[in-house]
Amino acid sequence: MPGEIFEGRYKLRFGQCDPAGIAFFPRLVEMVNWTVEDWFDTALGDDFRHIHMDEKRGMPAVSVAVDFLGPVRLGDVAVYRLAVVAIGRSSITLDIRAAHEDGRPILSARHTIVHCDLSDGVPKSLPLPDDLKLSMARFLIGDAQA
Amino acid sequence: MPGEIFEGRYKLRFGQCDPAGIAFFPRLVEMVNWTVEDWFDTALGDDFRHIHMDEKRGMPAVSVAVDFLGPVRLGDVAVYRLAVVAIGRSSITLDIRAAHEDGRPILSARHTIVHCDLSDGVPKSLPLPDDLKLSMARFLIGDAQA
Amino acid sequence: MPGEIFEGRYKLRFGQCDPAGIAFFPRLVEMVNWTVEDWFDTALGDDFRHIHMDEKRGMPAVSVAVDFLGPVRLGDVAVYRLAVVAIGRSSITLDIRAAHEDGRPILSARHTIVHCDLSDGVPKSLPLPDDLKLSMARFLIGDAQA
Amino acid sequence: MPGEIFEGRYKLRFGQCDPAGIAFFPRLVEMVNWTVEDWFDTALGDDFRHIHMDEKRGMPAVSVAVDFLGPVRLGDVAVYRLAVVAIGRSSITLDIRAAHEDGRPILSARHTIVHCDLSDGVPKSLPLPDDLKLSMARFLIGDAQA
Repeated sequence: MPGEIFEGRYKLRFGQCDPAGIAFFPRLVEMVNWTVEDWFDTALGDDFRHIHMDEKRGMPAVSVAVDFLGPVRLGDVAVYRLAVVAIGRSSITLDIRAAHEDGRPILSARHTIVHCDLSDGVPKSLPLPDDLKLSMARFLIGDAQA
Repeated sequence: MPGEIFEGRYKLRFGQCDPAGIAFFPRLVEMVNWTVEDWFDTALGDDFRHIHMDEKRGMPAVSVAVDFLGPVRLGDVAVYRLAVVAIGRSSITLDIRAAHEDGRPILSARHTIVHCDLSDGVPKSLPLPDDLKLSMARFLIGDAQA
Repeated sequence: MPGEIFEGRYKLRFGQCDPAGIAFFPRLVEMVNWTVEDWFDTALGDDFRHIHMDEKRGMPAVSVAVDFLGPVRLGDVAVYRLAVVAIGRSSITLDIRAAHEDGRPILSARHTIVHCDLSDGVPKSLPLPDDLKLSMARFLIGDAQA
Repeated sequence: MPGEIFEGRYKLRFGQCDPAGIAFFPRLVEMVNWTVEDWFDTALGDDFRHIHMDEKRGMPAVSVAVDFLGPVRLGDVAVYRLAVVAIGRSSITLDIRAAHEDGRPILSARHTIVHCDLSDGVPKSLPLPDDLKLSMARFLIGDAQA
């Protein structure tokens, strides 16, 4: 049943802040990757360790586009919410938004990743396995939200 | 005279690689920031230390959109090239592309940053100083490249 | 009552691994800092945001000495355990050990930090407030463990 | 001929600073690793890419002990200097010191790394190749400096 949202919550740590005491923006982009990693590890039944270490597959980034909507300060918790926009043969496009716990927006991102064979150091796209596609489909944005 | 390109060269370090031996993509986004930092420090005559520490101003990210065009491996040198797309009242939009030394593309990015007063932890946009605008204008993409 | 242990649990993320699929060691040292940060934020009643942003104080590192005792792999959870070895006028020395959930050791660290005034960019040591010392004293290693 | 010193120079970047505008200490520890990486890549004739990617060998950390001697500020250049204290069968112990360009000390570190086979994810120590030992021996601390 489509329409599920995956949620990750990340405290902005001291070492992720810049001299102004707000998030160094590449750390917020790194949290986009954390959200994807936690989605695979806890919601899709195909964790990053198994994919990468046992099977030498992976999900490299094709693109990431982020609009930063408000500052995050030392100690703030950023709530990242992930939904699936489109599932292709080997790639998927994600809609990832982060906000403070009180709802003030932090960022909005569109992120495409592609399922690859990484066994020889040159990523080669691989069709997504059917069971993984099925797991991902639960998070497809429904008509109402699109 | 518009049309200058600023160039930064960064070796992909061991600690910036993922388990597949290629760049962890948020590190390539971090290098987008390094390019901007080095541009200010060496080409614009208004270095990040002075701006941030002495004047409590800064250039937070408004947006960053990156297309990843090819893998970067441990030890590769990524050549980042920065040009200015548009200079507004307080924001600037940059075109940043990275490639291997032999020309193979790594990424293409569009990045908007905004000049801010950061003195009280809540970024407030500030008009760009005229001398900074003039320095930046040397890097405006000319008609031929646009 | 001395003898308490503070515990932080951190999953080794994809972006913290090196090309061999094990932890890049500076990321394990960074987790030593995470443990201290989480100790202040949740156990000492004097969180890092308040200390740093409101009061322009901080706890810079005087030293860190780490013995690495076993590898950590992508997806492993490292359990960090912190105890206090000594509380001085402005500095404290911590014993921090990390292990896998099944007890296999990861690292053992000795870490000294010092309470400082950071208001003008030159850290100046400050006596630890009495209430902070009292909170820390709960974590002093007792005679039995010393 | 023993007594050589390997030198790496690293600018403290915006994203490596904490909210006080000084180095986040784990980033200075990461630069200890950068120094070792650059030493292999440029002075020992056995670069990290070849060692890790082609041969599935590596040099994991056994220990790192760092005394922090003075702050590093945004934009400062840290000059890291590496010498070899001892060469064992598979491990080497390094003395690494960093200072500002005017000589003010930043840190002093003792760092032991061990040559390993990493081909199956469980590091196994391997004797150092003779040619690598010879290259390293040029950097042994002579009697005068010991």
